[in-house]
Amino acid sequence: MTVARIGVTPGDPGGIGPEIVVKTLSRPSELPPAAYVLFADPRIVAAEEERLGLRLEARQWLPDGPREAGVYIAPVPAPGWEAVQGRVAAENGEASFRFFETAVAAARNGRLEAVVTAPISKAAWALAGRPWRGHTDYLDQFYPGTIMSFWSERLRVALYSHHRPLREAVDAVRKDALAGFLTTLHRALGKIPGGPFSLLVAGLNPHAGEDGGLGREEEEEIKPAIDAARRHGVPVTGPFPPDTVFLRALGKQDAMVVALYHDQGLIAFKLEAFATGVNATLGLPFARTSPDHGTAFDIAGKGVADPRSMEEALRLAAVFSASGS
Amino acid sequence: MTVARIGVTPGDPGGIGPEIVVKTLSRPSELPPAAYVLFADPRIVAAEEERLGLRLEARQWLPDGPREAGVYIAPVPAPGWEAVQGRVAAENGEASFRFFETAVAAARNGRLEAVVTAPISKAAWALAGRPWRGHTDYLDQFYPGTIMSFWSERLRVALYSHHRPLREAVDAVRKDALAGFLTTLHRALGKIPGGPFSLLVAGLNPHAGEDGGLGREEEEEIKPAIDAARRHGVPVTGPFPPDTVFLRALGKQDAMVVALYHDQGLIAFKLEAFATGVNATLGLPFARTSPDHGTAFDIAGKGVADPRSMEEALRLAAVFSASGS
Repeated sequence: MTVARIGVTPGDPGGIGPEIVVKTLSRPSELPPAAYVLFADPRIVAAEEERLGLRLEARQWLPDGPREAGVYIAPVPAPGWEAVQGRVAAENGEASFRFFETAVAAARNGRLEAVVTAPISKAAWALAGRPWRGHTDYLDQFYPGTIMSFWSERLRVALYSHHRPLREAVDAVRKDALAGFLTTLHRALGKIPGGPFSLLVAGLNPHAGEDGGLGREEEEEIKPAIDAARRHGVPVTGPFPPDTVFLRALGKQDAMVVALYHDQGLIAFKLEAFATGVNATLGLPFARTSPDHGTAFDIAGKGVADPRSMEEALRLAAVFSASGS
Repeated sequence: MTVARIGVTPGDPGGIGPEIVVKTLSRPSELPPAAYVLFADPRIVAAEEERLGLRLEARQWLPDGPREAGVYIAPVPAPGWEAVQGRVAAENGEASFRFFETAVAAARNGRLEAVVTAPISKAAWALAGRPWRGHTDYLDQFYPGTIMSFWSERLRVALYSHHRPLREAVDAVRKDALAGFLTTLHRALGKIPGGPFSLLVAGLNPHAGEDGGLGREEEEEIKPAIDAARRHGVPVTGPFPPDTVFLRALGKQDAMVVALYHDQGLIAFKLEAFATGVNATLGLPFARTSPDHGTAFDIAGKGVADPRSMEEALRLAAVFSASGS
């Protein structure tokens, strides 16, 4: 069997990333069969194994070798691999950047079907002189227009806009851009098993504007965008009242909610799936997922980090790359 | 024992209101001891009892009689009490308005400690020539500046603004008004057992503005408002990232989240407590609660309506009026 090759990056060495990576990859029999390739400094991995009393049965990765299920390591030397845990540090920023950069290069060269990223610290990247605002921002230079989406067992959400002030997010709700987004999203989802996914668009205003009485965007921008996307064959409905659209989609395996701004989607998603949610970047030529939490510096190095979200990110990457390869 | 007197209105006769009222009041032993006074046309109540095969042991209410626990009826003749179920109708709008108007008058005259309202149809009120947008809007003429809040076992939320377009809600986040709101809310909560409640204010922008990088309102309006309220003795913290503030408050019995706009609060609340949530109007001289759902015309008359939210509304009214009387 030719399995998918899934790159894994441990994120910021000062956070919980190395811990959740070692916890999940030390039990590969509980993951879907795949070649899990860890892009990391072996010294960081060894230190984490020691701390947790766990051991990865990792082989050296040969990019052009045979594809066999198992755990591999692609060594990426890191500066300051002994940097202290639990805080923002330039060395950790530089290390986490290099792990990610190397994995992305392999994926861009067609040697990985997926990349799964443990959390980095944006502040540490900045200290290291790496100007990107995060993983997605870095990917954006190669693949502009990717879509941020969130996946759990019962709920799937895509964000029409994300890291911008709410006032700007309101201004950005325009029919042409939204119609384009819906079409792009539908196309990106077409590669994923389990579809076709029907899209449920949230309104912008309370009660989805109540026929114009509580805001005009639904009538002037959102409905025309939905109509345009439908004419292009996109299975999309709405706009639905924002406070019930998530309940409407909950548990429907082929439904995805389109949230019009960051918190509209993430308030719902984090309440529904805090410990097990997965962030997936859509619109790349490879799969990319990550756990839906941050570096958690406050609990780093204590061995108490919950690896479930990382485990789900690995699972989802395997599902996505099953058809993407 | 002198019990609280709790007025109950069945809402729109064409919706599920009469059903959930009869279902809950037919089992008074499962409710806190109180005098539950149903303001309704007895013919509507009798028809609902017949349909459900349940019976209220209701005595005639004597406003100046002794206060004893039990179920009472205060007859309010309704036009068109035979109006069909399951749709918006002027007669039903007029009937539901009269029930509510009569109960509110009794509360304003000091004869009730609480009013619990089953859902009305705004559209039916409009057809009946009653211009208010709902219960709260009607109360606003007597008691301006009331606060809409939501209560469940694990989460409590107050809305800084509610029925306005999102764009206007963003504009309304101003330090003086927000500081005044926090002070008013704290004062209103002071009458409620279980306090003092600590207030957690949500940010407006993603990640609560990330120190100004994702929006200025946190720095320019929200933090100054919180500081001002704290100087007046209000136990309030924030602004917190909107997508995690609800998780932070979840399960803390003395915490209430202050949401800055309708959907920020209600996306979270409806996901957390869809079937059992209660809406409470704060800042009135009496308690007022209602189930957190609508008329549900689509299932009216079928006997399948879930009465739990109504039951919780009755319980919360009893809790609130225990100290308010």
